Amino acid sequence: MDELDLVRMIRRKAGKSRDLILGIGDDCAIFRPRVSEDLLFTTDQLIEKVHFRGDAPAAEVGHRALARSLSDIAAMGGEPRFCLVSLAVPKERGAQWISAFYRGLLGLARRTKTALAGGDLAHASSIYCDVMVCGAVPRGPGTSSQALRRDGARPGDLLYVSGKLGKSWDRRIQPRLALGVRLRGRATACMDLSDGLSLDLHRLCVESGVAAELDRVPIATGATLDRALHGGEDYELLFTLKPGDAAPRGTTRIGSIVPGRDGSVRFQGNLLPPRGYNHFRSKPK
Amino acid sequence: MDELDLVRMIRRKAGKSRDLILGIGDDCAIFRPRVSEDLLFTTDQLIEKVHFRGDAPAAEVGHRALARSLSDIAAMGGEPRFCLVSLAVPKERGAQWISAFYRGLLGLARRTKTALAGGDLAHASSIYCDVMVCGAVPRGPGTSSQALRRDGARPGDLLYVSGKLGKSWDRRIQPRLALGVRLRGRATACMDLSDGLSLDLHRLCVESGVAAELDRVPIATGATLDRALHGGEDYELLFTLKPGDAAPRGTTRIGSIVPGRDGSVRFQGNLLPPRGYNHFRSKPK
Repeated sequence: MDELDLVRMIRRKAGKSRDLILGIGDDCAIFRPRVSEDLLFTTDQLIEKVHFRGDAPAAEVGHRALARSLSDIAAMGGEPRFCLVSLAVPKERGAQWISAFYRGLLGLARRTKTALAGGDLAHASSIYCDVMVCGAVPRGPGTSSQALRRDGARPGDLLYVSGKLGKSWDRRIQPRLALGVRLRGRATACMDLSDGLSLDLHRLCVESGVAAELDRVPIATGATLDRALHGGEDYELLFTLKPGDAAPRGTTRIGSIVPGRDGSVRFQGNLLPPRGYNHFRSKPK
Repeated sequence: MDELDLVRMIRRKAGKSRDLILGIGDDCAIFRPRVSEDLLFTTDQLIEKVHFRGDAPAAEVGHRALARSLSDIAAMGGEPRFCLVSLAVPKERGAQWISAFYRGLLGLARRTKTALAGGDLAHASSIYCDVMVCGAVPRGPGTSSQALRRDGARPGDLLYVSGKLGKSWDRRIQPRLALGVRLRGRATACMDLSDGLSLDLHRLCVESGVAAELDRVPIATGATLDRALHGGEDYELLFTLKPGDAAPRGTTRIGSIVPGRDGSVRFQGNLLPPRGYNHFRSKPK
């Protein structure tokens, strides 16, 4: 199976979208934006031996590669529109691995109405993928966008998280897209947990220019408190609401936003250093 | 230098764009499309030991990573708007390599008015990059788009190429953005040459459902005819015009579109097999 055959196979299986004037097969995909929508863009790499083991099932790698980027769209309150998928695999993996990868990816794409608009296929010495997702949010009011950002948390806001934390890697991520849409116009700040609560909450506080106090954390079955605080790969939403705003079901209040040194986080009174997963730090801070 | 410091440095250097409501630093970038424009999307991988040697200067790798995707935007007649850059590097390369990579990339980004809207940084065992570019073309007439596609070549159209072919890898790619814009509403088909004339022309003919006859090829200084016909990495534009339409300066008429078996290409009377660079073919056809 050569590149043209593979691309033909992927093209047949790629979903359609009313916004995509032209999908796979040309130099670029052509997309027609809808009036009164802003577009969201995110990209996430998934790399063998860094993010997953070489013996992970190809369909699960495909699912995960898309799910991570969809989680970023959820964190901004967006609805996914389409994705571009870059994939490099060793020659010996063959077309079967690639087909299974796309089966996993396209299953999630269908369920979340994410069209596959294009991408790039190459050979490399180990598996590498990078998935870009475009999502959309309504505009307004005025010249603003309804996208949820990290920088709007203010002292007095209450801090929430969806689901339970500290889950193991070994499960299918379900991006919190419906929750993200429900939080539009309500959450003062929102982000997804991909590198661990302590580091991600630190980042949210830095962007918002505030500090946070954590009271408690919902721990997943079988997980430890340490893992719930510092483990990565939860893909839950971390968000803030004004006091008095009722939180959606399935979310837990874990603390509050306070004045203080930008980015400083306390857990049950003690300083909590940000030590989640950080690609470019060799030692914990 | 940890990931936060690196992202801060890149963020400072990233250009601004009036369409980008939010750039680097949140889960997604926020982009506001202009009325009456369609958007183009493309992504291209650049991988150590596949597309470049590990001792290639980092600034040139950065330039090339962006230039390849910009060439796809040029091929569709688009103007670049912004890019997302995914980069994975071995730990031992350090922040200096990454800084130089971004210096090369952002130099070209500034000259072509491509804002850096976001991306992803990771470690890996060898250098890997993937650059997504979003471009724009005017809409119309009617519900159509002014984007140049591969599928519009018809028998009788004349075939052109920009520049000279068979150039060596060792130079800075200059994406033909101005030429692409000039060809809007005129070229019946257009694509960029990235995998060699014989293979890329074959692809254009397959998409258009036509055949082609090549009369001659402009050969770059120091190159051979074989390299001009089958060498990859030219990044010139290959396009078709209706007879009687004067070709822009700097382009050469190389043949014509004829009826025939879809995708079949002849050079000076003889069948020319598509044997340019194909990632997923182990042997020439």
